[in-house]
Amino acid sequence: MPSMFPVLDMPQRLLMGAGPCNVHPRVLRAMACDVIGQMDPEMTACMDETAELYRQVFCTKNRHTLLVDGTARAAIEAALVSLVTPGMKVLVLRIGRFGLLLTEIVERAGGIVCPVDVPWGEVVQVENVKAAIEEHEPSLLVTVHGDTSTTTAQPLQAIGELCKEHGILFYVDATATLGGMPLLVDAWNIDVATGGLQKCLGGPPGSAPITMSERAVKAIMARRHDEAGIRGTAPQGDGPVIRSNYFDLAMIINYWSAERINHHTEATSMLYAAREAAQIALEEGLDARFLRHRKAGAAVAAGIRAMGLEVYGDDALRMSNVTGVWVPEGCDANRVRTLLRTEFEIEIVSSFGPLTGKIWRIGAMGVNAAKHKILLTLAAFEAVLAGENVPVVRGAGIDAARAAWEAQQ
Amino acid sequence: MPSMFPVLDMPQRLLMGAGPCNVHPRVLRAMACDVIGQMDPEMTACMDETAELYRQVFCTKNRHTLLVDGTARAAIEAALVSLVTPGMKVLVLRIGRFGLLLTEIVERAGGIVCPVDVPWGEVVQVENVKAAIEEHEPSLLVTVHGDTSTTTAQPLQAIGELCKEHGILFYVDATATLGGMPLLVDAWNIDVATGGLQKCLGGPPGSAPITMSERAVKAIMARRHDEAGIRGTAPQGDGPVIRSNYFDLAMIINYWSAERINHHTEATSMLYAAREAAQIALEEGLDARFLRHRKAGAAVAAGIRAMGLEVYGDDALRMSNVTGVWVPEGCDANRVRTLLRTEFEIEIVSSFGPLTGKIWRIGAMGVNAAKHKILLTLAAFEAVLAGENVPVVRGAGIDAARAAWEAQQ
Repeated sequence: MPSMFPVLDMPQRLLMGAGPCNVHPRVLRAMACDVIGQMDPEMTACMDETAELYRQVFCTKNRHTLLVDGTARAAIEAALVSLVTPGMKVLVLRIGRFGLLLTEIVERAGGIVCPVDVPWGEVVQVENVKAAIEEHEPSLLVTVHGDTSTTTAQPLQAIGELCKEHGILFYVDATATLGGMPLLVDAWNIDVATGGLQKCLGGPPGSAPITMSERAVKAIMARRHDEAGIRGTAPQGDGPVIRSNYFDLAMIINYWSAERINHHTEATSMLYAAREAAQIALEEGLDARFLRHRKAGAAVAAGIRAMGLEVYGDDALRMSNVTGVWVPEGCDANRVRTLLRTEFEIEIVSSFGPLTGKIWRIGAMGVNAAKHKILLTLAAFEAVLAGENVPVVRGAGIDAARAAWEAQQ
Repeated sequence: MPSMFPVLDMPQRLLMGAGPCNVHPRVLRAMACDVIGQMDPEMTACMDETAELYRQVFCTKNRHTLLVDGTARAAIEAALVSLVTPGMKVLVLRIGRFGLLLTEIVERAGGIVCPVDVPWGEVVQVENVKAAIEEHEPSLLVTVHGDTSTTTAQPLQAIGELCKEHGILFYVDATATLGGMPLLVDAWNIDVATGGLQKCLGGPPGSAPITMSERAVKAIMARRHDEAGIRGTAPQGDGPVIRSNYFDLAMIINYWSAERINHHTEATSMLYAAREAAQIALEEGLDARFLRHRKAGAAVAAGIRAMGLEVYGDDALRMSNVTGVWVPEGCDANRVRTLLRTEFEIEIVSSFGPLTGKIWRIGAMGVNAAKHKILLTLAAFEAVLAGENVPVVRGAGIDAARAAWEAQQ
């Protein structure tokens, strides 16, 4: 006899961590649409529409804008394994854990990592980038936009200028900011940017948008090697074969273009989710959406401070959608998180590496960048902290958050 | 102003191709469950339950049974990039297009491919495998179980015995057979097997189950290199670093085990889909499910023959869930497919490589391995062919299919 389990019955928890966050109900419903064949005209039309929606989300005219079938990390790897050739020098800006992830992926793709490090909580200054470019002469510069591990956002525009001047390809991991903070792919000279659904776009993890400039596509297509079994008469590239088949962007570009050369089977339900998430974001309007995320971040920070706690990091550098909170001396950080979850059905999270157990992170992204969700989270947080004998000013956090939400422009 | 698109409104098409096929409505509903945090206890419990369900689906006691977040091809690449070390000799059995895909992935992972080829439509004989093992002394043998491009299924048991005798790791790509044809991972000495949801399991593409023997896990963990930023004090492997981060099974194993070392964010909605699909398969019972797929395959073949057309391949070798049909002389194969889609909302597909335009493929998998769907498909197919002046015996296909469904044991 097979051993079975009860019907799936997940709690309705408020996810105020660093992602995934709660999914917009329209996105959940979109996934219930019937699956159709991967080459049916309605399917390819849906792929084309989704590409057009993400062009707008990425603020780009890039023809080659598509989805990688996997979580945000899948698109990062697709970008890097397709851009990095063995022995290529890659400048990696590292402002937190996810800069270390980029390092890891570049190394595994055979690249030589030239790191530019800053202490966690800071960002890389443009003059240091310039010096590093002159020292290492890299072919590619890669960075995270918003690193949730440190809650800081790396300014990108001046770096894009530098890359353009020096003829360096520029990759940005925008997993945690796409749809929540401005990311102007064309205006900032970003060659490749990737995102995820499960942060500011209010979708589930499992599909990852990517956009590529013509310059990047040229570099990638120079490595075109269609797989045996489906290779036609199209000319192949003379560059080194991309080390991955699943993440071979040259093949994925052909799959998403009018050529429609068969590659993997598109993850249909996740495609529907990605399309719906982008549509919702654009209906709201990107500027309105960025303002809502700023209001949310300002409200969380103001609430935390009024309560009597300290916000992690430099206000000028912080992301608007994830806020770090220093754990007060003597407080059991994990116990606070557990009580929030078990008594209030609210999730907040810890961080990584040097910040493990040192800060909590409160996210307010996508549908959760909402006034009521922040106010209720602060109410619950205050109650739990008070119960743990942390000295908090009762009621002050909520009042300050309400005011900050309204004040933020 | 953003350019928007109408509400997602996909057709309710009957997908009788080679996958994806229609998704069980319970699976579609499961994806609408609320997302929860990736380390929340209900989430890790859901992962553990899903692992247990897939142990049963794979007929194995393998502790390390989990999901790769991507389509079926993602799990194939995860298996191969984690097993193949640069310079390793890999015997690749090639009975169709998907054997060529294995070749491609092994090569990109740095392996040396020793191919064993047969003409399309045939399978590899065990004595040829034996000879190839003796000639090449490979460390790994890889094969597709059911290759939908040729509709043939490679017998595995004797090859598993050979691999065991010779101390060779044995990988099987069971994308197209898992949940539809017997795959006895433990009894057949398979070290690693992977599947997909979108064929016989009746789920959407985008999540890919994998199971690994202790022997395979030992080889993989010898290559353990946790990424910087989350590396703890656990001992690391001394084998070569796996060339992919996303597909690093050593890290994914740790993520799915009690250690719960953070890796990618689990694709939550697809996890729900995978859990539900396995639960449905086990509720039906694997033997009943295999019989239903055999009945379906027998009904399609009998119907095609009674109509006056020819079935592709050798009956003794054919998969039960996908049937090839020779395109009659002078018939426009694509036009027939288009008419089926536009007038009957039924999808059937062509094939690849030497079989492009030569055969149609009719799949009957998952919820589509159903008597009524086959009878209605045959009715539509007959009508379209007759309209195209292909001589078919009107009504004979349906009658033969009804009888064959009942006769099949």
